Amino acid sequence: MKVLEGGVTAAKGFEAASCEANIKYKDRTDMAAVYSQVPCVCAGTFTSNVVKAACVMWDKEIVESGNPMQAVIVNSGIANACTGKEGFDACEATAKAVEKSLGVPFKSVAVASTGVIGMQLPVDKLVAGVEKMSKTLDGSIAAGTAASKAIMTTDTVNKEIAVSFEIGGKTVTLGGMSKGSGMIHPNMCTMLAFLTSDVAIEKALLQEAVSSVVKDTFNMITVDGDTSTNDTLLLMANGLAENKKIDTKDGDYETFKEALSYVCEFLAKKMAADGEGASKLFEAKVINAKTKDDARLLSRSIVGSNLSKAAIYGCDANFGRFLCAMGYSGADFDQNNVELFFESANGKLKVFDKGTPIEFDEDEALKIMQADAVTVFVNMNEGSEEATAWGCDLTYDYVKINADYRS
Amino acid sequence: MKVLEGGVTAAKGFEAASCEANIKYKDRTDMAAVYSQVPCVCAGTFTSNVVKAACVMWDKEIVESGNPMQAVIVNSGIANACTGKEGFDACEATAKAVEKSLGVPFKSVAVASTGVIGMQLPVDKLVAGVEKMSKTLDGSIAAGTAASKAIMTTDTVNKEIAVSFEIGGKTVTLGGMSKGSGMIHPNMCTMLAFLTSDVAIEKALLQEAVSSVVKDTFNMITVDGDTSTNDTLLLMANGLAENKKIDTKDGDYETFKEALSYVCEFLAKKMAADGEGASKLFEAKVINAKTKDDARLLSRSIVGSNLSKAAIYGCDANFGRFLCAMGYSGADFDQNNVELFFESANGKLKVFDKGTPIEFDEDEALKIMQADAVTVFVNMNEGSEEATAWGCDLTYDYVKINADYRS
Repeated sequence: MKVLEGGVTAAKGFEAASCEANIKYKDRTDMAAVYSQVPCVCAGTFTSNVVKAACVMWDKEIVESGNPMQAVIVNSGIANACTGKEGFDACEATAKAVEKSLGVPFKSVAVASTGVIGMQLPVDKLVAGVEKMSKTLDGSIAAGTAASKAIMTTDTVNKEIAVSFEIGGKTVTLGGMSKGSGMIHPNMCTMLAFLTSDVAIEKALLQEAVSSVVKDTFNMITVDGDTSTNDTLLLMANGLAENKKIDTKDGDYETFKEALSYVCEFLAKKMAADGEGASKLFEAKVINAKTKDDARLLSRSIVGSNLSKAAIYGCDANFGRFLCAMGYSGADFDQNNVELFFESANGKLKVFDKGTPIEFDEDEALKIMQADAVTVFVNMNEGSEEATAWGCDLTYDYVKINADYRS
Repeated sequence: MKVLEGGVTAAKGFEAASCEANIKYKDRTDMAAVYSQVPCVCAGTFTSNVVKAACVMWDKEIVESGNPMQAVIVNSGIANACTGKEGFDACEATAKAVEKSLGVPFKSVAVASTGVIGMQLPVDKLVAGVEKMSKTLDGSIAAGTAASKAIMTTDTVNKEIAVSFEIGGKTVTLGGMSKGSGMIHPNMCTMLAFLTSDVAIEKALLQEAVSSVVKDTFNMITVDGDTSTNDTLLLMANGLAENKKIDTKDGDYETFKEALSYVCEFLAKKMAADGEGASKLFEAKVINAKTKDDARLLSRSIVGSNLSKAAIYGCDANFGRFLCAMGYSGADFDQNNVELFFESANGKLKVFDKGTPIEFDEDEALKIMQADAVTVFVNMNEGSEEATAWGCDLTYDYVKINADYRS
């Protein structure tokens, strides 16, 4: 597997565009389009929030219907959630504008939104944006990068990646872009991810690969239930790599899944590190847990705790907070089996040993905690399952961003 | 029912003391004792965290054994959690010091701690503190107030209350003190509450009253599972009011339960409003929910969301965040039935009406949100159950307090 430059336009036959539609932001791009020259099989995962945005309901219908997908239109600034029938009509109007401009059936056009909840989208601006973008679609790396910037809200960096790999002598490419993150700002800052590939694969297997990979990547930066109204991941695969179609779980399927896992983990970690106001990446790795579910619960609970996050920000090796978060995670365990370490590029230090705190050198702990990425490493000593979760620290800037996000 | 001055010493036969034990804090009191002149029946509720502090295990044993309780010794500064056998030994040493000084069997002495997790308590200082306090126990209001101050950690005000009421012609008194809060600083800042009464009541009924009242008071500022390693509520009743002993669920029981509910709600709200860094009380009231559990889940999810809390701090009527928090609460509902209002001493404003946002006057919304106590009022229109939860806003100071709590 090779890591390439670019993102959604890296795979054969994919184009992208972006524009200033002035939906809510001024003087920046706020709409993006991803388009495949030929119809694609598609897979997706969506928010589990009971309150689903209009666009989520729209996309879910396409993915579940088995219709091909050929384009995705995304806007930033307004989320189109809690907007009733008018919100759903805005999705349809956008998709119909794509049908008119590009000749793609409107039931093959996905839409996604991120931003303020409870405000209606200006349909005229959306339609004008689609018309503009339909004239500038382009398969270059730059066009993909520009699209990844147009979907940002409070993100401080754009997020994209592409990889290539061999399947039966053919080069297959998989790329993607994402914005936001889940865990870090638990329920508002929507996580959107759009992946594109020229792999030839059956729809059911594509969905199975996506659902499986998401569990250990994107979902490990989002605590169950703590999901936005808009969270959406879509993968379009157009088959232009001309590999023998993957239609069973053979080695080719595993090769594809491995690449997908790499791309998703890369984007997930990048989102975690770019959490609102974040100053560092905060990772929790739990090994030797009784069950896989326990390992996931424990690691997510650690990175999700406000007090853990504040301690990581303050470079405070206050390991009790991490144990406390494990204690209310829902997983059952005996604290007398637990070993807890702090780890970073600057070293590794054991601070808790099977029920008893260890006296440690505060200067050494401080050095470890001051790194850009800090890991809490926990050995449960009760089984053989492991999981890793990613988050970020809790800072003054988080409060600042969210106290006046809407205005 | 009459509200009285004072707290834990208001009821007949109860005394309190406090002292500077220098356990971790300097130049302030950090130990407190509550003592009854005669043995008490007792009831308690404890943290559901898998990682329980040594003192929680100690007290649970006393409450469950059916032993009488006659004294509680509390320290602030160090939590005695994650401290292994040495931590449990510290509880026993403290209780034995009370036996030696006051002649109370050590198995009738409860202990409670709050502060940093993972540090051992200095037993010599605890024992010296007990000796000092045993000479200064005093039934005055001032002694109770001083005790309520000694148990504070990051609290900015002490919390106490007392009430009296009639049972069969006898005046019964119930008082209490508490510190910290649950929801507001979800997993660290321990909630401790100590209640004293001269009521004569059977142990089983006392426990039943406590367990029932806690659900709609203290637990509504603590999301399930998001509990500290140390959360403890203890109620001691010594029978000195000489009322006919409450031994069945009659009118007397209801009278007592009503007073208990008043006292617990008062202390719970006071803790919520004094959340770390808080600038205002944030209340969520949910009515007409399908089930009582749904009403509790929904209201707690609203006050527990970081983004809701940041919006309350910023006086931002960003109602989508509250709907989003409801959506991931675990309760099932249809957003097309929901009506949402902002309410405070400055007015009431509807902002969301059965699936559709309402255009509202931003100045009016701002005025409502600027009050010291703000309520999000939600009519689910799906049943007849209701619940209220309390929290506070998320501020810069929260981050500041928790980034360097340990040091």
